[in-house]
Amino acid sequence: MHKTNTADQAQESHFAAVRQHSVDLCAPLAADDFSMQPIADVSPPKWHLAHTSWFFETFLLKARPDYREFDPRYEVLFNSYYNGVGRPFPREQRGTLSRPTTETVYRYREHVDAAIAARLGRGELDESLLTLGCHHEQQHQELLLTDMKYILGQNPLRPAYCDDIVVTEDRPEPTPDMRWLDVSGGIVEIGTKPDSGFCFDNETPRHRVWLDDFRIGDRLITNGEFLAFIDADGYRRSELWLSEGWAAVQAGRFGTPPSPLYWHREEEGWFEYQLTGDAPLDLDAPVSHVSHFEADAYARWRNVRLPTETEWEIAAERNALESPRTPLRPTAARRQAGERAGMQQTTGSLWQWTASAYLPYPGYRPLPGTVGEYNGKFMNGQMVLRGASVATPPGHDRLTYRNFFYSADRWQFTGIRLASDARGTARSDVG
Amino acid sequence: MHKTNTADQAQESHFAAVRQHSVDLCAPLAADDFSMQPIADVSPPKWHLAHTSWFFETFLLKARPDYREFDPRYEVLFNSYYNGVGRPFPREQRGTLSRPTTETVYRYREHVDAAIAARLGRGELDESLLTLGCHHEQQHQELLLTDMKYILGQNPLRPAYCDDIVVTEDRPEPTPDMRWLDVSGGIVEIGTKPDSGFCFDNETPRHRVWLDDFRIGDRLITNGEFLAFIDADGYRRSELWLSEGWAAVQAGRFGTPPSPLYWHREEEGWFEYQLTGDAPLDLDAPVSHVSHFEADAYARWRNVRLPTETEWEIAAERNALESPRTPLRPTAARRQAGERAGMQQTTGSLWQWTASAYLPYPGYRPLPGTVGEYNGKFMNGQMVLRGASVATPPGHDRLTYRNFFYSADRWQFTGIRLASDARGTARSDVG
Amino acid sequence: MHKTNTADQAQESHFAAVRQHSVDLCAPLAADDFSMQPIADVSPPKWHLAHTSWFFETFLLKARPDYREFDPRYEVLFNSYYNGVGRPFPREQRGTLSRPTTETVYRYREHVDAAIAARLGRGELDESLLTLGCHHEQQHQELLLTDMKYILGQNPLRPAYCDDIVVTEDRPEPTPDMRWLDVSGGIVEIGTKPDSGFCFDNETPRHRVWLDDFRIGDRLITNGEFLAFIDADGYRRSELWLSEGWAAVQAGRFGTPPSPLYWHREEEGWFEYQLTGDAPLDLDAPVSHVSHFEADAYARWRNVRLPTETEWEIAAERNALESPRTPLRPTAARRQAGERAGMQQTTGSLWQWTASAYLPYPGYRPLPGTVGEYNGKFMNGQMVLRGASVATPPGHDRLTYRNFFYSADRWQFTGIRLASDARGTARSDVG
Amino acid sequence: MHKTNTADQAQESHFAAVRQHSVDLCAPLAADDFSMQPIADVSPPKWHLAHTSWFFETFLLKARPDYREFDPRYEVLFNSYYNGVGRPFPREQRGTLSRPTTETVYRYREHVDAAIAARLGRGELDESLLTLGCHHEQQHQELLLTDMKYILGQNPLRPAYCDDIVVTEDRPEPTPDMRWLDVSGGIVEIGTKPDSGFCFDNETPRHRVWLDDFRIGDRLITNGEFLAFIDADGYRRSELWLSEGWAAVQAGRFGTPPSPLYWHREEEGWFEYQLTGDAPLDLDAPVSHVSHFEADAYARWRNVRLPTETEWEIAAERNALESPRTPLRPTAARRQAGERAGMQQTTGSLWQWTASAYLPYPGYRPLPGTVGEYNGKFMNGQMVLRGASVATPPGHDRLTYRNFFYSADRWQFTGIRLASDARGTARSDVG
Repeated sequence: MHKTNTADQAQESHFAAVRQHSVDLCAPLAADDFSMQPIADVSPPKWHLAHTSWFFETFLLKARPDYREFDPRYEVLFNSYYNGVGRPFPREQRGTLSRPTTETVYRYREHVDAAIAARLGRGELDESLLTLGCHHEQQHQELLLTDMKYILGQNPLRPAYCDDIVVTEDRPEPTPDMRWLDVSGGIVEIGTKPDSGFCFDNETPRHRVWLDDFRIGDRLITNGEFLAFIDADGYRRSELWLSEGWAAVQAGRFGTPPSPLYWHREEEGWFEYQLTGDAPLDLDAPVSHVSHFEADAYARWRNVRLPTETEWEIAAERNALESPRTPLRPTAARRQAGERAGMQQTTGSLWQWTASAYLPYPGYRPLPGTVGEYNGKFMNGQMVLRGASVATPPGHDRLTYRNFFYSADRWQFTGIRLASDARGTARSDVG
Repeated sequence: MHKTNTADQAQESHFAAVRQHSVDLCAPLAADDFSMQPIADVSPPKWHLAHTSWFFETFLLKARPDYREFDPRYEVLFNSYYNGVGRPFPREQRGTLSRPTTETVYRYREHVDAAIAARLGRGELDESLLTLGCHHEQQHQELLLTDMKYILGQNPLRPAYCDDIVVTEDRPEPTPDMRWLDVSGGIVEIGTKPDSGFCFDNETPRHRVWLDDFRIGDRLITNGEFLAFIDADGYRRSELWLSEGWAAVQAGRFGTPPSPLYWHREEEGWFEYQLTGDAPLDLDAPVSHVSHFEADAYARWRNVRLPTETEWEIAAERNALESPRTPLRPTAARRQAGERAGMQQTTGSLWQWTASAYLPYPGYRPLPGTVGEYNGKFMNGQMVLRGASVATPPGHDRLTYRNFFYSADRWQFTGIRLASDARGTARSDVG
Repeated sequence: MHKTNTADQAQESHFAAVRQHSVDLCAPLAADDFSMQPIADVSPPKWHLAHTSWFFETFLLKARPDYREFDPRYEVLFNSYYNGVGRPFPREQRGTLSRPTTETVYRYREHVDAAIAARLGRGELDESLLTLGCHHEQQHQELLLTDMKYILGQNPLRPAYCDDIVVTEDRPEPTPDMRWLDVSGGIVEIGTKPDSGFCFDNETPRHRVWLDDFRIGDRLITNGEFLAFIDADGYRRSELWLSEGWAAVQAGRFGTPPSPLYWHREEEGWFEYQLTGDAPLDLDAPVSHVSHFEADAYARWRNVRLPTETEWEIAAERNALESPRTPLRPTAARRQAGERAGMQQTTGSLWQWTASAYLPYPGYRPLPGTVGEYNGKFMNGQMVLRGASVATPPGHDRLTYRNFFYSADRWQFTGIRLASDARGTARSDVG
Repeated sequence: MHKTNTADQAQESHFAAVRQHSVDLCAPLAADDFSMQPIADVSPPKWHLAHTSWFFETFLLKARPDYREFDPRYEVLFNSYYNGVGRPFPREQRGTLSRPTTETVYRYREHVDAAIAARLGRGELDESLLTLGCHHEQQHQELLLTDMKYILGQNPLRPAYCDDIVVTEDRPEPTPDMRWLDVSGGIVEIGTKPDSGFCFDNETPRHRVWLDDFRIGDRLITNGEFLAFIDADGYRRSELWLSEGWAAVQAGRFGTPPSPLYWHREEEGWFEYQLTGDAPLDLDAPVSHVSHFEADAYARWRNVRLPTETEWEIAAERNALESPRTPLRPTAARRQAGERAGMQQTTGSLWQWTASAYLPYPGYRPLPGTVGEYNGKFMNGQMVLRGASVATPPGHDRLTYRNFFYSADRWQFTGIRLASDARGTARSDVG
């Protein structure tokens, strides 16, 4: 017989806390919100609640034949993209399912939670898969907030996700100018160190990279700075844009007139929708919900560039400052007297587009089995983002974390950090 | 001061009854159902509840400047297609709106109902517009049921709209063979007679038509008869199909393999989804949810044709039998001993595709003002359907009623009635 | 042995003349023109040359087993839409075939011509199919000119089809105002009379129609009159448009800013591309290359309507004046002193949109066999046009001719003739 | 006065030879071929002839105000993608232009050639731009052959580009098995060395990279080896595919059933279309016209991977064997007695997909001015190919050459070379 020990209890309580956090994030939602899928990228909140349960059911519970499924039809219905499990229900049709109802999905969660708890109590679970399942759920918690922002933000009524959280900031002084941090290169190592705790397979193996000296911005680009780009006809100067980015501008994919995703211009000036509601544009807050194309064009306009993921990781490891976390929307960088120079807003503000394509690290191996479809099969055509955002659950960020999206994507919490070749090389910055 | 009289009271109670019926139809819905729009043709139930209120608000209440809108943004949000009111919110995006919530929409209804009641009490309403608004609401009641069938029927779980209605039929004998009714022609008149009560503008003016003698089927085509068409390779014989219909078959628009919309083949045989749930195909019930193309191909296979709308109206006026109404799904035709020959299933079963394009009657004039967009601007590219279906609210059917949809549409409650040139003319039937 | 008689000789020389006319029409083309298909509606000139030969080969020559095909692969390659012959090569890919070369296609024509001539000499041909084949070729001669106009007119260089034809018009006086012709109704007959020579199956059977008294315009609407519609914001007033027409305007399908297909606005004013080249807009010439939607909106703006096909045919039979034919582009109507009132521009100018959907006449039967796909299977979703255009080959027009296109089509030589209810009925005209 | 010296004469004769080669490549074409664009990726041969002339005209001739344009409208018409010159004529409509005719385009070439020669004679040309223009023309010579293969290969008649070139191979022995070449890593340098002759900007700057030891295949994968992948259900095993590649397979983008682009299965077995005509599949020739997705899936099936571009360049620099060039279609690898181990088919056979995304080298700067749009703006979303193909003109290949296409592209001459981590690392191969 299995003896419950302290480690197991910790794991069980961590599992319970992670699962509860998903439910908590849905507390402010109206019943009408749970099934919405306004664009294919966005999944309904109800789907996130169900799919995260499906993950535990599929990869942990079904491993034992005595498991009784809540509903065998969910195997197809809530499979995201694991072809090894069977042909998934089409992603772009997730918003067509009014049934199972939200209420039934909550009961599905309870069914899975009870089964996991029972197995944990009997020591029958694969611990590494349980840990993976919790991190998987945390990723979907981030997506859930991100998707809710789109669901509410694209609605002409622009309702707040949560009215009662008032983010007030103490701003004794204006946001300081961006400063460059000089970083020296050489042969460096990136990727997660062995035995340093959980990481996704795509962060491994740790490996050597040759790196030239470079400079990196000490904070993210602000709304005010991006507004200057717009006012300088940045969206109209083809020479600033990658070819596909320019085609996207011309096709109106960045709005008419173009601007970051949640900006809208009214008679009184620019406004930005946030999860806390619609409000006049905060010039000191970091610009958010921009595509890689816009980030790249902005950098080109400044005569600099975006950092590679190696540059970002090395700079962050050496220079990251403690960042105050604010919920729901990113806040302005600040510099206090006496503080050493360093990277602000490294995590907890916005994901930061890099100049690196999302490709396997040298020697990369996906996880064995169907769960190996988790990360590896997406290593084509996307760009890496580093950092973490206000939507990332606490404890889910790492400096080695590799997030990835398509260059035109904007519904994520994405921002801009600049980099530049080291002083003295050919390209000089204007900053 | 206005003196409330009996006519007003009748009108008020009719208004209240019509409004209540929409709410009653939504009683079986789950909260998740109200915002669904799985395809552009289907509108969310919540939208129907809101738009019908918008109609009263826009065309009756706003006529007086003292009316206080519930929310001025609804003018755009719940406008269906009245360009005279402004650019409507895009139809295909109705399912992207989680807000206003269903609860708020119910409060919007109450706000409008109260305002209408107050005006009625003061005799301030345009009675013909009030009547139009009630008929408009009844059309949306039919659409609401039709759309709910699609919302639930396309869901892989195939839930019933209403489990507790059990439609049991007393079937002492099998459905009798279809018989032909001979109808004589000449100069006839169709269209609503003046002063015969409410009708839509497209049913007017009553006018003369030359009509040859013809024959018409005394009941609708059954599932069993349509199955024979499938089994005889009807969907694979290009010579039976109009060119666009054949293209639709080839493109898989009628399913793979093709069949009526809600049929699906399982190991045990054919099933059909109904609002009462999924069940084995009832061979005696009329075939439903077929496109004009399928109806036309079926008729061609039988070596006959569909009736024109003139033929349908004249035949129905002279021969319609009382049809028992069943809710939610059409039931088999029957013939009782001693009953005279006549048209069964004329109304109350399924809308019936005709061979007539939806065009204005000679001398047609739309209603004056913006409400004139109601019918007239759709008189192009669609086909006329006659009759009424199990989804049509009681009291909303007329033999002169002209319904209209595109030839490929199938989500409506549509069926097949055959016609033929009179005996002795070139084309003979096989029946 | 077969004795060649005069009738056969006449038929052979008619066949030869019709075939030669196709070749003559291609004389002005550059080698580069023959394979062009800028939009799916347009077929490459080479394809017309090949397909008309295919028609004779398929329906006449292959009937005898001793026929040796020029290339058996052409059966699929040059089949237009006869599913009875097999699955045709996709229409929208006709412009992807550089081979067979134009030169080879001309040899294919010669091969077919020789085989037809040999059979004719031996009296082995089905004469009615030979006649049909000649009329078929004439239809494609019209399409060939129509398609060449699109091929050259959409090219930014706007080259003339034929520089050496100078259409000079003797215009002693301005185009007279349009006048209304009053036509009395009753029971009338339309459709081709039996034994009145060749007609397509869709013009039969001649049948009775009830017709109210009406009025019809004595000439087509001019460019100048249509310009007044544009200048009066006709393309911006939604109340003038059918719903699908308005959607087409909004989607930019009629140009940005909208205008008839070959109009373009330059600094010096409006120009119109014609087969004779680009030139300033001729205000007196009839407006051409408009969709049914634009014709309908124009009529609505004038507070009148388009004629039904019954009205058009009856009016033309009673009132058509001899119209001078001009090649390649329509010319202004004129009225000479002493001339009786009558319908000008009935044929030989532009096809005229009617208010009638393209449907079978009562009692219609398609031709037997695969050639029955010629007309019947398109009787859905299109509108009837009457008359004939400058592109119609001499001898190919009839007052009973039913042409048909989709309501949004504009690449055909289409124009506008107005009609109105008889004076004294509700709708009055502004003319 | 300018004195013509030997260097100038050499440049002039090089220019003339390059220009003549384009004309020579078009010699086998039929008049009908010159304007074809069956898919958007393919440009008409006529367009290549015109655009390469446009390049010289735009970037060299127009620099002086005394230049007289052949036709000022060509500035827009034959601009490929240089937004700095103005909005280019839409790429996907290049095949809609029958005018200017091929004959006129040849006169345009002569006009440009004469102007270049005159300027060269006067020493008035920017030599680096002239060199760039020649390399640009060579790139289009390769595209012209590639596009002609698609134009003819997609035609159901499958005509040969050139019947009179018979590629007969002396094959004394079967193709030897692929062998692995072991390559040692460390800090290496890639990119063109300064002062080593012409290169495109994207090959610079030469820079350091850390490289692990690796192994690389000594020849390309053959048709026979790829057939084994197909026969082993390679196209049906989702676990072998990147996510987007699998979606492409499912959507039928690689054919039904899927296979390399020009393969087709007949009763007698597999055939492959080549520029020399259609023929039974040559099992020893390298598999060609595969997408990156297929190359990647094939490698995964073999339990290895594709080389990075660094690996390819380093391995080729150290190991490339002299490869015999064959025109029009790639031939089998061979190994002669006594020959040292080395990389065969490095250039002159097929472009080889790498595992590297097309991104700027560290410190990359595009060329100044509008010509800077040449390469840099495409550095997003595409993969690098290395080597050169049978379609590459002699003298146009370099081991540092970076070609780039989208992962799904197949109309290029693309093949597969495998790589693997060094022996002893985790992943072992099956070869």
